[in-house]
Amino acid sequence: MERVAIIGASMTQFGQRDDWILDLLAEAGIECLEDAGVSAADVDHLYVSNMASGEFEGQTGVVNALAHDLDAVPAYTQRVDQTSSSGGAGIYAAWQSVASGASDMTLLVGGEKMTHRTTGESTDVIASLTHPVEYKQGVTLPSFAGLTARHYLERFDAPRESLAKVAVKNHANGVDNPHAQFQKEVDVETVLESPIVADPLRLYDFCPITDGSAALLICPESVASEYTDEYAVISGIAGATDTHVVHERMDPTVMGGVVESGENAYEMSGYGPDEIDVAELHDMFTILEFLQMEGLGFAAQGEAWTLVEEGYTEKDGELPINTSGGLKSKGHPLGASGVAQGVEVYEQLVGEAGSRQVDADVGLSCNVGGFGNCVITTIMEAAR
Amino acid sequence: MERVAIIGASMTQFGQRDDWILDLLAEAGIECLEDAGVSAADVDHLYVSNMASGEFEGQTGVVNALAHDLDAVPAYTQRVDQTSSSGGAGIYAAWQSVASGASDMTLLVGGEKMTHRTTGESTDVIASLTHPVEYKQGVTLPSFAGLTARHYLERFDAPRESLAKVAVKNHANGVDNPHAQFQKEVDVETVLESPIVADPLRLYDFCPITDGSAALLICPESVASEYTDEYAVISGIAGATDTHVVHERMDPTVMGGVVESGENAYEMSGYGPDEIDVAELHDMFTILEFLQMEGLGFAAQGEAWTLVEEGYTEKDGELPINTSGGLKSKGHPLGASGVAQGVEVYEQLVGEAGSRQVDADVGLSCNVGGFGNCVITTIMEAAR
Repeated sequence: MERVAIIGASMTQFGQRDDWILDLLAEAGIECLEDAGVSAADVDHLYVSNMASGEFEGQTGVVNALAHDLDAVPAYTQRVDQTSSSGGAGIYAAWQSVASGASDMTLLVGGEKMTHRTTGESTDVIASLTHPVEYKQGVTLPSFAGLTARHYLERFDAPRESLAKVAVKNHANGVDNPHAQFQKEVDVETVLESPIVADPLRLYDFCPITDGSAALLICPESVASEYTDEYAVISGIAGATDTHVVHERMDPTVMGGVVESGENAYEMSGYGPDEIDVAELHDMFTILEFLQMEGLGFAAQGEAWTLVEEGYTEKDGELPINTSGGLKSKGHPLGASGVAQGVEVYEQLVGEAGSRQVDADVGLSCNVGGFGNCVITTIMEAAR
Repeated sequence: MERVAIIGASMTQFGQRDDWILDLLAEAGIECLEDAGVSAADVDHLYVSNMASGEFEGQTGVVNALAHDLDAVPAYTQRVDQTSSSGGAGIYAAWQSVASGASDMTLLVGGEKMTHRTTGESTDVIASLTHPVEYKQGVTLPSFAGLTARHYLERFDAPRESLAKVAVKNHANGVDNPHAQFQKEVDVETVLESPIVADPLRLYDFCPITDGSAALLICPESVASEYTDEYAVISGIAGATDTHVVHERMDPTVMGGVVESGENAYEMSGYGPDEIDVAELHDMFTILEFLQMEGLGFAAQGEAWTLVEEGYTEKDGELPINTSGGLKSKGHPLGASGVAQGVEVYEQLVGEAGSRQVDADVGLSCNVGGFGNCVITTIMEAAR
């Protein structure tokens, strides 16, 4: 089977935006096409990753509107929803459209508009993705994060500071990302003195609520080479669920969806954890970066925190994680986040990451839906 | 490339149901697996076609909940939304998952729970799929249908009765469908004397608001033959958009998405309109059955009504259309409808259509999103 290539990428400014969802999607979509030098008329499949434009803005059918706005009609369109991993699911849908032979040029745009709603309203919309037996009792995603963090710290004798250092690292990386919502450093004290949200986690352990959009252009490798010599290929991609009822899991520090999707993506790609040069992990909460490092085989169970303490995951470390700033600093517009992870890995592989650039031939992104309810892991490599 | 097969199908009772979306999805999903004799543990991809569970019920993440309820974890999951053509888009996503080599067994379940909301509320949710420049002025989908019907009747000198006869035919077919919302005949007088909704269309020109779910089990043909000798294959499938702003179309009687998706599906399948033995068309409004007959090449432009008058599309006619009762009589639970169209064509091809059975080797379904904003056409044939 022919390999599936990525030939273009873009993201809008993340943060508090004064535009509605369609403006954000169109902005990223147009820029992505321009980045690759591809005409909208050549796009035959258009996917939008978006969790909840209907709930946030009362507007559905946004992918059809986007086809119209981009002048991509009669391209086939579909909205991809996999809650907070809608972006990763979009990459998988786009990969399938090309790998199945259906598409010669797929544009994927992920986006979400959230900041016009109150934090309470946004939390309600997000909480609706969990099982009602949990969310109607008030166990929202931040609550799960707090419970898991407490368990992890005690069980593995990890210092509270190690979690704070995830936030510090990702904020430091975000300073170099002109599209990040926060482009400012924080120190361990600031994290540890910020208001408690879900004990032991504090405000700076959480990603913000964000507006933004990101896009990728995906096609068969034979088509890619008509446009550019600098592209990436998707070597491995897989998704997997874990129990939807979170409290039924045997070990709260193991995210089954991360493990399963990671193993399958590694197997498909032919690469293992040791061969990954750069990774974007879903740090919606600082504790999640530990769980994904362990689930993906970058660290043994209970030992991710030691790597963070050693600086192993810093930009100049052995395995730079979240060079983009991660969800923590870059922001987390639900449907955009998984796509933006792909944008960062792509830019690192083709050497377009500017002051964030690291030396990387193979990269990985892991996009977590809910509290690991469904996870998509993608492995890309630079075309050589 | 290996052919993609359908080996199981099911649908719940359509109508006013006292269950919520998850119950409906689980009911169809379990029955579909039983129909094929496949274990949930063998399902590796699970798609849910659903437009608006968040808006209708305040519940998102339903596909992850379904994986949990069916015991299909760690299967990959994704919700497919393409407004009222979410079901057809789901068939396309499932086809891609198998055709790309990613899946050996994909379960697709489409469903929607609507009747607990008022007609006004449901209409508002559905209207949010159209462009605000239109829906904020009050031009909802029924309005477009009325305007188009008036234009069609006058331009092609078609009698008003010909539209009524679509409803009469589909209601007659629905009598033989034990899962249909309405299992009762209506006559032309009843249609023509029913309350006006959008002149010249009256209540009986419109499909109802419906709760329900439907499912299909899709896999490579090599896997299908391990389970059964009686299955169907997807010979052709394609989707296409038209202008999202409906009033920008050059000819209101031509649905570009129908024409484009039909042509591409025919080309992929190797069949033409003359070789289709049975078809399920998206008769959300009676006028749409005419437009799809013409767009798909079953009739020349402006002549579909003559075929209806001749009985050509009756169950014992040359090309039976909507043997299931169609959306008109069977009901239209948004995300379920396109899947249920596939269920009917599958059952006709494998000889499981009971008293609705016609003689068919090749069948077509056409699922219309919005007012033709995106359309998916699927061609199946019986495996021989």
